[in-house]
Amino acid sequence: MAGSLEKGRVYIVGAGPGDPELITVKGLNLLRSADVIVYDRLAPKELLSHARKGAELIYAGKAPGAHSMSQEEINRLLLEKAKMGLTVVRLKGGDPLVFGRGEEECMFLVSHGIECHIVPGIPSFLGAAAYARIPLTSRGYSSSFAVVTGREAEDKGFKSVRLKDVARAVDTIIILMGASRSAEILGELAEVLGDNARGAIVMNATREDQLVLEGSLSELLELARKGAVKNPAVIIIGSPVSLRGKLWLGNAGSS
Amino acid sequence: MAGSLEKGRVYIVGAGPGDPELITVKGLNLLRSADVIVYDRLAPKELLSHARKGAELIYAGKAPGAHSMSQEEINRLLLEKAKMGLTVVRLKGGDPLVFGRGEEECMFLVSHGIECHIVPGIPSFLGAAAYARIPLTSRGYSSSFAVVTGREAEDKGFKSVRLKDVARAVDTIIILMGASRSAEILGELAEVLGDNARGAIVMNATREDQLVLEGSLSELLELARKGAVKNPAVIIIGSPVSLRGKLWLGNAGSS
Repeated sequence: MAGSLEKGRVYIVGAGPGDPELITVKGLNLLRSADVIVYDRLAPKELLSHARKGAELIYAGKAPGAHSMSQEEINRLLLEKAKMGLTVVRLKGGDPLVFGRGEEECMFLVSHGIECHIVPGIPSFLGAAAYARIPLTSRGYSSSFAVVTGREAEDKGFKSVRLKDVARAVDTIIILMGASRSAEILGELAEVLGDNARGAIVMNATREDQLVLEGSLSELLELARKGAVKNPAVIIIGSPVSLRGKLWLGNAGSS
Repeated sequence: MAGSLEKGRVYIVGAGPGDPELITVKGLNLLRSADVIVYDRLAPKELLSHARKGAELIYAGKAPGAHSMSQEEINRLLLEKAKMGLTVVRLKGGDPLVFGRGEEECMFLVSHGIECHIVPGIPSFLGAAAYARIPLTSRGYSSSFAVVTGREAEDKGFKSVRLKDVARAVDTIIILMGASRSAEILGELAEVLGDNARGAIVMNATREDQLVLEGSLSELLELARKGAVKNPAVIIIGSPVSLRGKLWLGNAGSS
């Protein structure tokens, strides 16, 4: 139908981890010129102030266990707007291709003849690393890291996350979306790495209310059992965490 | 000495993977106001055009095997400029805390009483994923990824990279700085994952001259043996690579 109508396009843009200044310049420019912005719960709300006058802003928020719009509904919405010839920015927290389902939305659009582009964003774990000063790699400490989901997989068409194997294979282990299962996760890691392995849990990474718990696995486990770990949380375990104290100018640092 | 002189500060800023628009808004703002910019070989040169008039631009390029400035010299340079009360941006390709040695520079500065801040950047592997359209995770395909270095470790104070263990533990395997050892790396992975596992090698990720090799491990191995893999290269192995064809609007996509 309407083959002569110019089709719109969809940009799937990573908004970054929370600090609104951590969006890319490219992402911000697209946001400014978009006709429609469809945004997630974890995309920084401050970014919406950059929308041009008259742009349509649509919330497609997804809280854990309380989806306000299903993935299928979001897909249909993006398609509908693009078919109207509009330029659509789909704004997602973090990076669209790291547990972001950007590829699902893009595949749906492409299968319906709509062009889509993906703009990367700073994922929560990189924001947490920079703002809580936790190197993910470092000479003498870590030459590898892994990023896994803390949620039980929704389907089993691939390797399930075998946390112990991961802990044996890499130096730094990062768990996303693991708040609700944090005690279980930390306990499993302690079995491989020992109670004294260092770790940190960064909540609301890069936000003004960022909160960092740092300690040994056994200390973190105790905090997790007390319910101290809340979403959104990034769990980072590995010896580079021990460098944290040397990356701050404390009282001792004056010269 | 000169205790009354106001000390400068150093911002260690991730410049992103290559496309100059992939720097963060925060990084760009800092670049614009810096007194001194000390930049790496892999930081996009286009970004230097944003420096304010009169800013001092210093190249600290590090090509593999041909360091034009040693790490110690870079550390000393940053310290010297900061001690003069200047605002210094240390601009690095990718992200400062992912094989970027940002933590080494920051630790050195802090140990000398200079404040440092770290601003994350899009690492090469996320740029490669977005611009070559390779999801790192995807429902039914991958719920974990690992990032490892392709270079032999320079010291052995930590786990060495055991590629086969990594390949068994996670769904998507990403190897950075692996061009020169690519045939060896792909061969090792094929032993665990089989010759038909899918992979892609993205060279000059997000740059206008980005080049992608995609195929089975045995096909990629053949190309690697012919010397087709050049730095900078991101190697991504795992079943999500097979989704790539569905993320482009090709001839088949018109409707």
